[in-house]
Amino acid sequence: MANFSEFDRIFHPRGVAVVGVSSDPTKYGNMFFSGLIEADSNVYPVNLKEKEILGREAYPSIKDIPHDVDYAVISIPASGVPKVIEDCGKKGVKAVTIYTAEYSESGTKEGIKREKELVDAAKKANVRIIGPNCIGICCPSGRLSFFPGTPKEEGDVGFICQSGGHAEEFAYEAESWGITFSKIISYGNACDVNCEELLAYLAEDPETKIIGIYVEGVKDGRRFIDTLKDAASQKPIVVWKGGITKGGSRAVASHTGSLAGSPEIWSAVIKQSGAIMVNDRDEFADTLSAIRYLSRPSGERVGIVGTGGGASVASTDLCEMNGLSVPLLEEKTMEELGKIVPPLGTSVKNPVDLSYFLMQNFSLLEECTELVAGDPNVDILIVHIGHLGRMVKFRPSDIEIIFEALIDTKEMMADKFPKKPLVVILHPAGSMNVEIEKVKLKKRLVEEGICVYPSISRAARALSNLASLEIEVE
Amino acid sequence: MANFSEFDRIFHPRGVAVVGVSSDPTKYGNMFFSGLIEADSNVYPVNLKEKEILGREAYPSIKDIPHDVDYAVISIPASGVPKVIEDCGKKGVKAVTIYTAEYSESGTKEGIKREKELVDAAKKANVRIIGPNCIGICCPSGRLSFFPGTPKEEGDVGFICQSGGHAEEFAYEAESWGITFSKIISYGNACDVNCEELLAYLAEDPETKIIGIYVEGVKDGRRFIDTLKDAASQKPIVVWKGGITKGGSRAVASHTGSLAGSPEIWSAVIKQSGAIMVNDRDEFADTLSAIRYLSRPSGERVGIVGTGGGASVASTDLCEMNGLSVPLLEEKTMEELGKIVPPLGTSVKNPVDLSYFLMQNFSLLEECTELVAGDPNVDILIVHIGHLGRMVKFRPSDIEIIFEALIDTKEMMADKFPKKPLVVILHPAGSMNVEIEKVKLKKRLVEEGICVYPSISRAARALSNLASLEIEVE
Repeated sequence: MANFSEFDRIFHPRGVAVVGVSSDPTKYGNMFFSGLIEADSNVYPVNLKEKEILGREAYPSIKDIPHDVDYAVISIPASGVPKVIEDCGKKGVKAVTIYTAEYSESGTKEGIKREKELVDAAKKANVRIIGPNCIGICCPSGRLSFFPGTPKEEGDVGFICQSGGHAEEFAYEAESWGITFSKIISYGNACDVNCEELLAYLAEDPETKIIGIYVEGVKDGRRFIDTLKDAASQKPIVVWKGGITKGGSRAVASHTGSLAGSPEIWSAVIKQSGAIMVNDRDEFADTLSAIRYLSRPSGERVGIVGTGGGASVASTDLCEMNGLSVPLLEEKTMEELGKIVPPLGTSVKNPVDLSYFLMQNFSLLEECTELVAGDPNVDILIVHIGHLGRMVKFRPSDIEIIFEALIDTKEMMADKFPKKPLVVILHPAGSMNVEIEKVKLKKRLVEEGICVYPSISRAARALSNLASLEIEVE
Repeated sequence: MANFSEFDRIFHPRGVAVVGVSSDPTKYGNMFFSGLIEADSNVYPVNLKEKEILGREAYPSIKDIPHDVDYAVISIPASGVPKVIEDCGKKGVKAVTIYTAEYSESGTKEGIKREKELVDAAKKANVRIIGPNCIGICCPSGRLSFFPGTPKEEGDVGFICQSGGHAEEFAYEAESWGITFSKIISYGNACDVNCEELLAYLAEDPETKIIGIYVEGVKDGRRFIDTLKDAASQKPIVVWKGGITKGGSRAVASHTGSLAGSPEIWSAVIKQSGAIMVNDRDEFADTLSAIRYLSRPSGERVGIVGTGGGASVASTDLCEMNGLSVPLLEEKTMEELGKIVPPLGTSVKNPVDLSYFLMQNFSLLEECTELVAGDPNVDILIVHIGHLGRMVKFRPSDIEIIFEALIDTKEMMADKFPKKPLVVILHPAGSMNVEIEKVKLKKRLVEEGICVYPSISRAARALSNLASLEIEVE
């Protein structure tokens, strides 16, 4: 395994070469190159024929670049890759990302043989390989990006992602989760640099506070477990394991050529290691943002404040189905609630149902949440907001008032109950215009550091995962 | 139990009275009244003091209305309700909705006693009660609506909903599911008219093709089972049972005062009856729209077409975790796919991964879907679309092209494989602008009769529910 400083050099290279850049902006070589220019990297195009690409001098070989180059991205047909690796070795390049595919993941003898040749060439040249069949590294602090438009903001979530597609999509999507990344690494077939090495690096990396992993298969199960356990004792880790079913494992074979293991083994291994295991894209996102924005609660008892009896019943069911509990409040709390919540069609038990009185007096939200949060039976707060459709249609200004009431509630919680996490649910709204207003409202709330979920189910899963965590974020 | 024509008169009344209408537009009496005016109902306000409300002559008592009145909505303090019921009897009113709360759901002796008095008054007056503690009936063909803004379009889904909040919210929200309603009935505490009677009515109702139920508790379990079984043999039925957990059952007690039963009993009962049981709001919506728009597949084997290796692996896992399977395609199908899908970084196994070639040639979507749908191993088609963020940012016109490619694919399927359901996934997109574009794209696709889901998980659950159905929609 490489040591920390060797890896850190790769993520913060003095210069970067892109081998296989054409002038065609729809080709991947060009996209990598443009992305690195946009990220303000010291990036050099390598192309046998062109003299200049996008205003930068092009070189026929990486060896001809008259600057330090620590990292290269290779996007040329497979047959030429071993020679480029040899040249990289001569140039002193530490690591290459190989975008080129048709290696072991193709399942063909030729593909497997080609991948073996890569590994041999890399060993001989003393160059580390990321991939093949991947998009490599995005690291804002190292001015490395995948493509034009990849977020540039330095964040604190490190994301190890075997799939290039997920790596790219999540890079864009994470804005809506309120997440920014320290590093994203798409490592494809993992013929050399693997999940465990990357995990050990991120565990040590001071830029990374939380680690997310999308992994399809590992080649050395024991080593993966040990590394995961070690890393999970230092930082919160969320693992999404692709290929957990019979069919999924077959799909993995044609995607990254990895072995997949059985669902039972994976589930047991990940949980025992102290990491959180999630099952889909939404749960991955929701759990990361819960860890990013919320304190770890001291228990699993949820206090719920919102409107609607049906919504109260459903919220309770969905919390309890996801391993949380919705306890009765103390008599004293209910008495205090009773003094501010009118009795008709409401409830001051848990969930607290403010019914339509909320729409008449939005400050009830903060007042009731404070009373519920003060109850010793409650560890976690859920505030759920429905009837956005009616608001947008009849009293659009209510959207602004609800925004302010939620901000007040969040500030009150941060001030008075910093150890009790608060999440907000914006229930589905309906018509296109209302949905668009909801997207806008959600963005503003996320920008204020509030965890917003689109359903009780998703919130309850994320909160249950958060409550299972054994360590705090640094 | 009332017979069909007695009930049908209530849903298509000659005249409607609203008892307790004030001039204050934020009061519920006024909202019911305004909603019924907007729905073009023959509606009459009853108010002791006012002579005219919203330009309509007001009457001091229902008995003073000089027109036929078959149905009344009562929104006055509990103490006055028995007298109004007595008057309704004298006027020949068939049924009343009682919005007023603080009956059995309050859990107090007084509340329980008040509810008993209601039942006695109704029996004596020969008037049926819907509620109390509910918002009653929405029936576009009968010009009955809950409130201003309640959808007026006549649809074919009948929705029996114990919760008023869910009834109102779903009335608005269903636009985004592509669903319109024949009837929505919020029936609250069910002191008289109950879920079983309503179910028997909708089973017979020619306007209703599909039935959705949100039920918290029933008072006669045996009768509920028998009615459900009978109705489920005639029409597809989706049941969301609120109060299935310990905490949820406690919440039910303070919401509609019903007994809740244990989760095991409910789950077994509903499945045995031939109805579909769902666990949350999203699954309820997703399943209803799957039944509404898709043919019942002849099996559970899914063919998947989209982009991204990681997305392919995840799709497969999530289908199989939800009881579907993702089989290998026949050699012949893969050969045909291989002729049109370039080999690099793609897959022609199932899932078919078009990688970035899709972005270069969107007609691959229809062509590949046709080949996969023609495979005898495939019963259901999922098309999933990612990278919307990149499209919106760099080639906004791609959104239009993808819309057209999806319409072509849908038309091809309807034409050549009418028995194989097709659903479309629009993966999460990220930035606010992209999310807004996605909301718009989804709306257009839903208007074209395409089932669109926001994640593979939600699609897989809905499809699995659809596949479990034992009867077709009429």
